[in-house]
Amino acid sequence: MGSESMVRVKIPATTANFGPGFDCLGASLGLYNYIDMEFSDAPKVYVKGEGVEEIPLDKTNLVYQAAAKVLKRANVNKDLKIVLENHIPLARGLGSSAACIVGGLMAANHLIGDIFENSELLKIATEMEGHPDNVVPAAFGGFCLSMIYENKIIYKTFPMPFWLKFVVCIPDFELKTEDARKILPEEINFKDAVFNISRTAMLVAAMAQGDLSNMDIFCQDRLHQPFRSQLIPGMEKILATVREKGAFAGFLSGSGPTVVCLTLRERADALGEHMVDIFSRAGIKSCYKVLSSDSEGVKFL
Amino acid sequence: MGSESMVRVKIPATTANFGPGFDCLGASLGLYNYIDMEFSDAPKVYVKGEGVEEIPLDKTNLVYQAAAKVLKRANVNKDLKIVLENHIPLARGLGSSAACIVGGLMAANHLIGDIFENSELLKIATEMEGHPDNVVPAAFGGFCLSMIYENKIIYKTFPMPFWLKFVVCIPDFELKTEDARKILPEEINFKDAVFNISRTAMLVAAMAQGDLSNMDIFCQDRLHQPFRSQLIPGMEKILATVREKGAFAGFLSGSGPTVVCLTLRERADALGEHMVDIFSRAGIKSCYKVLSSDSEGVKFL
Repeated sequence: MGSESMVRVKIPATTANFGPGFDCLGASLGLYNYIDMEFSDAPKVYVKGEGVEEIPLDKTNLVYQAAAKVLKRANVNKDLKIVLENHIPLARGLGSSAACIVGGLMAANHLIGDIFENSELLKIATEMEGHPDNVVPAAFGGFCLSMIYENKIIYKTFPMPFWLKFVVCIPDFELKTEDARKILPEEINFKDAVFNISRTAMLVAAMAQGDLSNMDIFCQDRLHQPFRSQLIPGMEKILATVREKGAFAGFLSGSGPTVVCLTLRERADALGEHMVDIFSRAGIKSCYKVLSSDSEGVKFL
Repeated sequence: MGSESMVRVKIPATTANFGPGFDCLGASLGLYNYIDMEFSDAPKVYVKGEGVEEIPLDKTNLVYQAAAKVLKRANVNKDLKIVLENHIPLARGLGSSAACIVGGLMAANHLIGDIFENSELLKIATEMEGHPDNVVPAAFGGFCLSMIYENKIIYKTFPMPFWLKFVVCIPDFELKTEDARKILPEEINFKDAVFNISRTAMLVAAMAQGDLSNMDIFCQDRLHQPFRSQLIPGMEKILATVREKGAFAGFLSGSGPTVVCLTLRERADALGEHMVDIFSRAGIKSCYKVLSSDSEGVKFL
């Protein structure tokens, strides 16, 4: 493919730490950021939508930084004009930084004629992000398994049922991943590890078979949710009640504070309202969105 | 189906704790015990093959105990004559007790006209065995995931590639599951739990897709093997070297002492000899067997 004078990409939101799959399982959601990128005589960044008041408009911008890494590696000494149209809220556990990084890398690579392989971009993205479990679904779509082995990213993807809806309830406060990491213990109970291992196995098999029965059991977690619940008032109550309100399962999205439910279209709004209501009783303002799964990952438009 | 006057079943050996899947992943192997069972005027047990010198020949016999539970539950007040032809070595980590339990339950159930559902027998078997990860593959065959949830056994099975061979190297000493359990810690490193979770996810996906690449990585374990290696001299060295000798992966079978390798037919004997050789250097006598996977589980003959 030759180089293009201007590139437009869309990148999906993602939910990581899917149920018991801490640092390993993620999924791609039908909520997108858009990036327009072209060469320019000076660095220019414009932002519309989510994060408009906090996102830097200079070379420290995350999309710009990612793109600049690609240009530098290809010895292209040019500046960029980048226009961002953001729909993924920042620091809520919906993969906005992974979307910026993956989008910035892939857009810049496309701009210079797709010099680098996806595996190389994935590696850079994971280095920038710190872990691959948002990066992989942002890039490729679907339900994703990922891990790092000797500096290499290993991943597998599965399609999700088209009719499956994700109700994401987004609290009105930010939770930085590093703060949410600090609260995790260094040691955990052996039985809790086995608890998560068995559920991870079942969840992956269920997704591979497209069979969502027992999903509430398979999405249980004892590795991070019990510790993070103290940072997210209302979360525990939501997770304890979504099943009776018609969800297949619920879990914390990434390191939070967003809470996700899996359900059918016709139950989605009632569930969203239920989640907002519980957050509200815990003194937290929130809003909900009903999202489809995404099966494409990064897409050039 | 009506009741039969005599029943003959074969039950496969099993390997549990498959790689990272502690207490959860198991597989069924092409090595069998056979049980002949019929009603009798007095309790009689005969044994041929493995365990002939140690297996009790009265009502305390494990197969007899399992069968008696079924009869009692069905209010059948009769004694049994049981003839066992055993090929699965005892207390070596190849599921001999699960085979006795599952075989005894299913044979007795068949004898009384299949009164009980498999799910009920599975529950009894798991209660007797303590965990479901040998019981499920012994009953159903294939690569199996299992867990206990609120007193119910949840399981999923996948076929394994027909060409995949299991080289099992069986040391000449017994290791009781309870002794091998005692050596496990109550707490483990958070990172080690995440290590096993990611590999469990990948291993299940690999089996679901029938793609055995990276199997050596996906079969790594940090939950039980590092602790049990002190009970099994030579094990660590075997696991560290089987890959270069042509195995896809190697792991401890169940709670040991048997070590298993996954490989192709043409590499199996060299691997078996290599494993025996390393055990021998560690002062352990052993023998190896090259086994196919089993896809049927319990079979009435």
